[in-house]
Amino acid sequence: MLDLATVIRDIPDFPKPGIIFKDITTLLANPQAMKQTIDEMQQRFEKDNIDAVLGIESRGFIFAGILALRWEVPMIPVRKPGKLPFETISESYTLEYGTDSLEMHVDALKAGQNVLIVDDLLATGGTVRATAKLVEKLGANVVGCCFLIELDFLNARKQLQEYRIESLIHCDAE
Amino acid sequence: MLDLATVIRDIPDFPKPGIIFKDITTLLANPQAMKQTIDEMQQRFEKDNIDAVLGIESRGFIFAGILALRWEVPMIPVRKPGKLPFETISESYTLEYGTDSLEMHVDALKAGQNVLIVDDLLATGGTVRATAKLVEKLGANVVGCCFLIELDFLNARKQLQEYRIESLIHCDAE
Repeated sequence: MLDLATVIRDIPDFPKPGIIFKDITTLLANPQAMKQTIDEMQQRFEKDNIDAVLGIESRGFIFAGILALRWEVPMIPVRKPGKLPFETISESYTLEYGTDSLEMHVDALKAGQNVLIVDDLLATGGTVRATAKLVEKLGANVVGCCFLIELDFLNARKQLQEYRIESLIHCDAE
Repeated sequence: MLDLATVIRDIPDFPKPGIIFKDITTLLANPQAMKQTIDEMQQRFEKDNIDAVLGIESRGFIFAGILALRWEVPMIPVRKPGKLPFETISESYTLEYGTDSLEMHVDALKAGQNVLIVDDLLATGGTVRATAKLVEKLGANVVGCCFLIELDFLNARKQLQEYRIESLIHCDAE
């Protein structure tokens, strides 16, 4: 078993000074680490009868696509505004300066479906909360949110207490 | 076996009047179609000793990620400018109005590696040509380019004659 944290590359001062960016391309380039990542994500939600896996644009697509195929359930893309061509529902979230929003197709989920939300990184949690609201707008259930990396020092988990959060790698220090 | 073309949804006048957008979310939501898609892509390049699979942002990530994991080789993201955090190489391509560019990490490939480029759609081929140039800048070989859908009427294949192009769905009419 690999220690997945050691496979992630830290990039100081990206995208701006003071931020240490978690570069997952080194994990994507490591087949053993990728297999272990997906196996672990699958195992954590194996007994939850997941009906659909939501991937948040764009790195979330990679993990969500693989999980959905393993479970033989739909993979649903959640995208930035203007990207999805069919009728959408939208949910905004707060950024450091201003707001942004995420969209999902209005026919992406059916009421009562059990949904897993997947992304590579849990930071402040704004995109996850917006995505969860999109799921709930369509009457489906957020069974959990699964991340490769969680930045513990940003305390997103506290803001998302009503949801089950599973992260494979925890980063404690800023 | 499904006729994959029937699983794709046509959206007229998106993103602008006169364009029929090929919506692949209906395929992503259909596990049987997704499995058939990946099986077919894998089969077409099974004998080519692929060392790395390149996914073009962002829908290309989905298919590239699954293929790379199946072959147990690196998945390399090719992204829009400013998204990749490590040192990058860049290649520009022409749009209808102006130009855009794509980036890849400078350490993404080793010289001599056999690379498969994957995206959901082959339209005019600008992004594919730019991606192929990035591969060649690093001394690796473009073994082929694999697409879910090819818009035959745009004749990208003619502009990409030096590369092997494999597409699962061909769209003849505008």
